[in-house]
Amino acid sequence: MLNVGIVGGTGYTGVELIRLLSMHPEAHIVTITSRTEEGLNVCEIFPSLRGHLDLIFVKPSIDVLSRCDVVFFATPHGVAMEQAQSLVDRGVRVIDLAADFRMKDLTQWKKWYGTDHSAQQLLEEAVYGLPEINREKIRNAQVVGNPGCYATAIELGFAPLLSSGLVDPRSLIADAKSGVSGAGRKQELGIIYSEIGDNFKAYGLGGHRHHPEIVEILRGITGANVELRFTPHLLPINRGILATLYANLNERSAHLVRTAFETFFENEPFVDVLPVGQFPDTRSVRGSNFCKIGLQISEDENSVLVVSVLDNLVKGASGQAIQNMNIMFGLDEKMGLNSLGLVP
Amino acid sequence: MLNVGIVGGTGYTGVELIRLLSMHPEAHIVTITSRTEEGLNVCEIFPSLRGHLDLIFVKPSIDVLSRCDVVFFATPHGVAMEQAQSLVDRGVRVIDLAADFRMKDLTQWKKWYGTDHSAQQLLEEAVYGLPEINREKIRNAQVVGNPGCYATAIELGFAPLLSSGLVDPRSLIADAKSGVSGAGRKQELGIIYSEIGDNFKAYGLGGHRHHPEIVEILRGITGANVELRFTPHLLPINRGILATLYANLNERSAHLVRTAFETFFENEPFVDVLPVGQFPDTRSVRGSNFCKIGLQISEDENSVLVVSVLDNLVKGASGQAIQNMNIMFGLDEKMGLNSLGLVP
Amino acid sequence: MLNVGIVGGTGYTGVELIRLLSMHPEAHIVTITSRTEEGLNVCEIFPSLRGHLDLIFVKPSIDVLSRCDVVFFATPHGVAMEQAQSLVDRGVRVIDLAADFRMKDLTQWKKWYGTDHSAQQLLEEAVYGLPEINREKIRNAQVVGNPGCYATAIELGFAPLLSSGLVDPRSLIADAKSGVSGAGRKQELGIIYSEIGDNFKAYGLGGHRHHPEIVEILRGITGANVELRFTPHLLPINRGILATLYANLNERSAHLVRTAFETFFENEPFVDVLPVGQFPDTRSVRGSNFCKIGLQISEDENSVLVVSVLDNLVKGASGQAIQNMNIMFGLDEKMGLNSLGLVP
Amino acid sequence: MLNVGIVGGTGYTGVELIRLLSMHPEAHIVTITSRTEEGLNVCEIFPSLRGHLDLIFVKPSIDVLSRCDVVFFATPHGVAMEQAQSLVDRGVRVIDLAADFRMKDLTQWKKWYGTDHSAQQLLEEAVYGLPEINREKIRNAQVVGNPGCYATAIELGFAPLLSSGLVDPRSLIADAKSGVSGAGRKQELGIIYSEIGDNFKAYGLGGHRHHPEIVEILRGITGANVELRFTPHLLPINRGILATLYANLNERSAHLVRTAFETFFENEPFVDVLPVGQFPDTRSVRGSNFCKIGLQISEDENSVLVVSVLDNLVKGASGQAIQNMNIMFGLDEKMGLNSLGLVP
Repeated sequence: MLNVGIVGGTGYTGVELIRLLSMHPEAHIVTITSRTEEGLNVCEIFPSLRGHLDLIFVKPSIDVLSRCDVVFFATPHGVAMEQAQSLVDRGVRVIDLAADFRMKDLTQWKKWYGTDHSAQQLLEEAVYGLPEINREKIRNAQVVGNPGCYATAIELGFAPLLSSGLVDPRSLIADAKSGVSGAGRKQELGIIYSEIGDNFKAYGLGGHRHHPEIVEILRGITGANVELRFTPHLLPINRGILATLYANLNERSAHLVRTAFETFFENEPFVDVLPVGQFPDTRSVRGSNFCKIGLQISEDENSVLVVSVLDNLVKGASGQAIQNMNIMFGLDEKMGLNSLGLVP
Repeated sequence: MLNVGIVGGTGYTGVELIRLLSMHPEAHIVTITSRTEEGLNVCEIFPSLRGHLDLIFVKPSIDVLSRCDVVFFATPHGVAMEQAQSLVDRGVRVIDLAADFRMKDLTQWKKWYGTDHSAQQLLEEAVYGLPEINREKIRNAQVVGNPGCYATAIELGFAPLLSSGLVDPRSLIADAKSGVSGAGRKQELGIIYSEIGDNFKAYGLGGHRHHPEIVEILRGITGANVELRFTPHLLPINRGILATLYANLNERSAHLVRTAFETFFENEPFVDVLPVGQFPDTRSVRGSNFCKIGLQISEDENSVLVVSVLDNLVKGASGQAIQNMNIMFGLDEKMGLNSLGLVP
Repeated sequence: MLNVGIVGGTGYTGVELIRLLSMHPEAHIVTITSRTEEGLNVCEIFPSLRGHLDLIFVKPSIDVLSRCDVVFFATPHGVAMEQAQSLVDRGVRVIDLAADFRMKDLTQWKKWYGTDHSAQQLLEEAVYGLPEINREKIRNAQVVGNPGCYATAIELGFAPLLSSGLVDPRSLIADAKSGVSGAGRKQELGIIYSEIGDNFKAYGLGGHRHHPEIVEILRGITGANVELRFTPHLLPINRGILATLYANLNERSAHLVRTAFETFFENEPFVDVLPVGQFPDTRSVRGSNFCKIGLQISEDENSVLVVSVLDNLVKGASGQAIQNMNIMFGLDEKMGLNSLGLVP
Repeated sequence: MLNVGIVGGTGYTGVELIRLLSMHPEAHIVTITSRTEEGLNVCEIFPSLRGHLDLIFVKPSIDVLSRCDVVFFATPHGVAMEQAQSLVDRGVRVIDLAADFRMKDLTQWKKWYGTDHSAQQLLEEAVYGLPEINREKIRNAQVVGNPGCYATAIELGFAPLLSSGLVDPRSLIADAKSGVSGAGRKQELGIIYSEIGDNFKAYGLGGHRHHPEIVEILRGITGANVELRFTPHLLPINRGILATLYANLNERSAHLVRTAFETFFENEPFVDVLPVGQFPDTRSVRGSNFCKIGLQISEDENSVLVVSVLDNLVKGASGQAIQNMNIMFGLDEKMGLNSLGLVP
């Protein structure tokens, strides 16, 4: 039985970790921290957990956390990089759901997150927690940077094409649409219901934090320079990301596309490549850890369209974090993650 | 042409006033004030108004406002009562969309709004702006307290029953459901999309500010004591209130119910009593100033059910305010308010 | 391991049975029937099930079904009563999710379902599958009539009050609101998105099929005559029922209410009575088998308000059916039903 | 005063025509036809119209229709081409909101609509009703083919780029998202609320009827071959289209983009090019006849992104049809179309 700590349990990735871990036979939540809600029972904020959890939010304490086997940081960006080292020093493995350990490029980090990175050595050792490309490294990682939700959907959609050299890596377009829970649980005028309901818009067109993360990973896959146009949109749904991906095919590559995907994801427990002519909707993965992918070759065979969906709080955050935990501790990778999409 | 001022133009009742007044042939918006957004063009916040309005938010100024014929307060509770007297002294008529001039009962005011009322003399003169019961008083009012959105739906639904003595006034139940825009345009965790979307709940069960307002008005109609159970719920829709009203019928009253409604609202331009067996949905009044009402007598003829719907931002706020303005200035009561429900 | 058959697997209760049974350690789905989709893989209709189920829709066959330990009917009303007897004769136990075995009153059945009941003897033996009031009878039942979704929410909300004699049974009001999946998966103009989205309405005001079912059960609980006003409404959400219940308290009963609920549901695994001042929202039980209940006494102590929520497809249908299956076969009642509400 | 007939008044474009025409000072609806609803009052289907219209659905009659100045066909594809000639022969001008008179290419017509075109001569004379590119031809047209909703959004977004030769016409991508009302008011499993709500998907990836229409128009604008990848998606909103458009800029063209748009739409009453850094959301045009457009040049200046929004039932259908009517009859083009977006 793994002893698990959660730092920052009041957000949506926090409650999703708790929900998923409550179905995990080998994980035991030891402590949940929150500075703002200290002393409150977790179920007061999330009544859905009543009867399954009897924990009080506590201030983060190195003593308590160091008794854990693994600590999840479900905190805003910048928190994990301050606290991870002291945990690692005490033999605790860390999975950060924020951006602190995703990008190696310190210049990009500073540009997008506004501060210098305060744990640069740890960052070097940290492993990007996308099992489909980094499974072996994750096994022994002390610190895992859990990928962003957009990043997971887009990287899984482009990876087979880039790794097999079927497309021009400078022709990538990711037209991505996300449910509102991706913006977190916070007081913000732009995400109140009356601003989002029965409405739709693009945002972040001047540049988005996930862009450099994605480019860095895709460049690692292809080895060549990557040019990616990335347009996020905000959907009036709670959960779910759908990324519509476009790329120009190299000559005589069209017939290789489907095989490239099927081979790349052959043994992947959580990626499902749909048959010809089928395309996934977001609800098919609602609450589940799957990424589902549909493929379409243009009539002139010059380009490929990939539709990639996942639940931003599961495969895009807490589910993938638990998948990483399972890998790190030698458990069955699917443990606790076998629930199916909630339809409708 | 009426010169109109709007104090507090950054909320939803503010932008709705602007939208409706832009279609009003006899109203000209002179000034829109906002302390927080001073200097910003109104269209920056509400791009839907681009091309129809070229006004900058300014600090409220008694000089500018006193050049208006009428000033709407689309501010939080407590603002109008501080500023109305000086406008009235300068011959400006005031319509307050908040609660400052709705209730005569100073004890209830203090209980629900937390402060003493600072304009008690003006409050005595002020008229409750529900045209269907107060039209003549509104004509000459210097200050109108525009009814709350729940209050309008519930009062219009019970008024014919109480005024004709068909029901027991101590048996009233109002099970009311409101769209989220009724909560205003503000940063608040409880109304972000992820808390409201695909979800439904009751709230304010320990007591709601609109309760004493409604009871005071209903008591005025019946002359007797009123007991009202009022349960508000929050709907995952932008606009619209639907109130399901229950009352116990006095003996041999059932057959008089429909006539009571048809008579009460006979010449009302904005209340529509639906035929037998028809019941309104909220969208049928979306964006329009109508209140639509459906009626059902229970099989045993012991009780009556009334379904009353309106758009909380129109008949429940800004539309009714303009209707009041039309009455106050001797204009056609329907002027600028003839748009139909947006369906779907 | 139980062998399970599902008759009529193309609706929402069908796919929900499949989703829930896929997490049930002691159930094995042997066959899923559909006349209309014969030959199609179940996953073609419900891609969320891909990888977890490899079954083809087949025509219902008594031979195949009789090899099952239990057969769920997720069919329209009127199907189970034609087929149940032959299954029971072969030792197969039947759980009908439609209305065929819910009401004993044959006159009411004919009135609301338009035909004579064709399995009257079986109906007499059949047990109403609400474990909280019928657990012992369910254990040995050959045929269980699984309660309707509205019925479950309303009966659980009124049962403690009626069984302990705290309220006037002729004063009951159930103002109930349901998500659209309660209307089933069918081509119908009234439930297309454009008719429901950003909209809200009451319906069935002239009488609703669930009304006699509820009254029959409540009368059984209290022993006295029950008068119930029942107003269903249609919410623009996928799943969830919230019933707002009103009843007049007998004198000096107010202080007994909470204890009545806590006692009645003391050992119930799936009913959660919330603490004073807390009220449930529908999402807190989304995808889970819980019914959550909040209580409020009116200030004058003359009446009580109960808010009861459940997921219409889980505790209101397929989850409760599995709960009944667990009871019938001596399994842990919670087996396969321990997932928590999906929030947000 | 124009006498107006509407053929096929039971769909959403029909009721939207009625809503908009009810605010038009120079139009009088003479007749509304429906074969299926003959004899029913229009307000029975659309209670939002009560009090503003007292018309009964009648069977289409050439006698009654020929008394009109203009007849709108709000019918399925294939109806107008059968009936338009006899109306034109009687001096009635025709505006078809379906696809019958949009495309000149008869091969494409047959491919996508499954039949030969039965009014080929009339088709030759018919004018594509996009005022921003065809205003002069519309003035004298006897038959106008009103553009599709996707087509309008995409054509207006690409037109300035293509007409000024700033982009490679073979690099066009239109990633488009539509509200559900675009699918019409019909019984169809795929558009019921439970299939759409809290969900998102792409559709029509194997080819969409609007694709050849758009390509034909764009080719007309540029004079060169056009390659367009078009991906429609279905949004869980009632109204609104947002098209995210991508094109590769020719060298040294980036700085000309904004001017191209501002010049192209300089005197257009219903197209609004937003300032630098602003992008439109669908609600900003809800219920209004505006198309709003935002622009973004990629950092490397190699490509341009255009975000184009409109209300699919107004500028994408009935509003544009009335705009065409105004042009055809020499009225102020904006007459009856001055309402602003309903926000929120």
